[in-house]
Amino acid sequence: MDHRSGCPINLAVEVLGDRWSVVVLRDMMFGNRRTFRDLHVNSLEGIATNILAARLKHLEAEGLITFAPDPGHKQKKIDSLSEKAISLVPVLVHLGAWGLEHTPSTPELGVRAEVLARGGPKMWEDFMAELRSIHLGISMPEGVTSVCDFMQKSYEAVLNEQQKS
Amino acid sequence: MDHRSGCPINLAVEVLGDRWSVVVLRDMMFGNRRTFRDLHVNSLEGIATNILAARLKHLEAEGLITFAPDPGHKQKKIDSLSEKAISLVPVLVHLGAWGLEHTPSTPELGVRAEVLARGGPKMWEDFMAELRSIHLGISMPEGVTSVCDFMQKSYEAVLNEQQKS
Repeated sequence: MDHRSGCPINLAVEVLGDRWSVVVLRDMMFGNRRTFRDLHVNSLEGIATNILAARLKHLEAEGLITFAPDPGHKQKKIDSLSEKAISLVPVLVHLGAWGLEHTPSTPELGVRAEVLARGGPKMWEDFMAELRSIHLGISMPEGVTSVCDFMQKSYEAVLNEQQKS
Repeated sequence: MDHRSGCPINLAVEVLGDRWSVVVLRDMMFGNRRTFRDLHVNSLEGIATNILAARLKHLEAEGLITFAPDPGHKQKKIDSLSEKAISLVPVLVHLGAWGLEHTPSTPELGVRAEVLARGGPKMWEDFMAELRSIHLGISMPEGVTSVCDFMQKSYEAVLNEQQKS
């Protein structure tokens, strides 16, 4: 493959520097979306099917996701994150923290990023361990609690607060 | 402005998710490139003038860079990073760390990313303080040593090693 340069930041941008790749990875990481349909129908940003198909192909070619048939459905495929993708968690955490600080994000959509930013490196490690268990079948180490559950509960708490006021 | 969603990760991608914005910010942060000419002529990735002009305009519109005339040159403009841009340092550090691990980066172009990844949050804070002093005229706090100098020396050490072998 031709690369623009051997700088690691440039090479990361060559993989991730487009309008959709990070957003698709976010939905797989934070929303546990594992099929084309789920990634399309539940897309907050309304990703078009042709763009989603192209991004999934790109992410597969870059070794960030893999596909496997869903035993319950003949045509469905389950997308899994690779270790290469899971190790992007700190990048997404810092993008989210920056977005919280410098963009007009909304409380209910910002709460997961806030939980992770506050949680610090230990929580990111736990979240990566949880993603490895979901996507790679690697057992969670002893004593690791679910970060996904904690983020979901924090999200629901914000929704409850909003309904009250 | 119309946004695709209020998710902070999406909003960050709306600002930075293209093939060049992060690379231009990298050159301003790590290479102290402050003029159009410097950003163009010394671009490792060979950025084209029309793309560079468009990206600078975009970064200015997003509040990431500002321009000021250079007192020494009538037509030159000096680009400065804003606090909003400087606070992207942790994102670039993690992109670089991921690139080091998962892409075919070269030792001489990877050494700055390696220094920062190893240095940890304290070094990133010092680097941001140094950028604030260079770009915003905010004095460096007592006891902060130059991270730019340290990265430059580490880069030269790698070059020296390569010439020996």
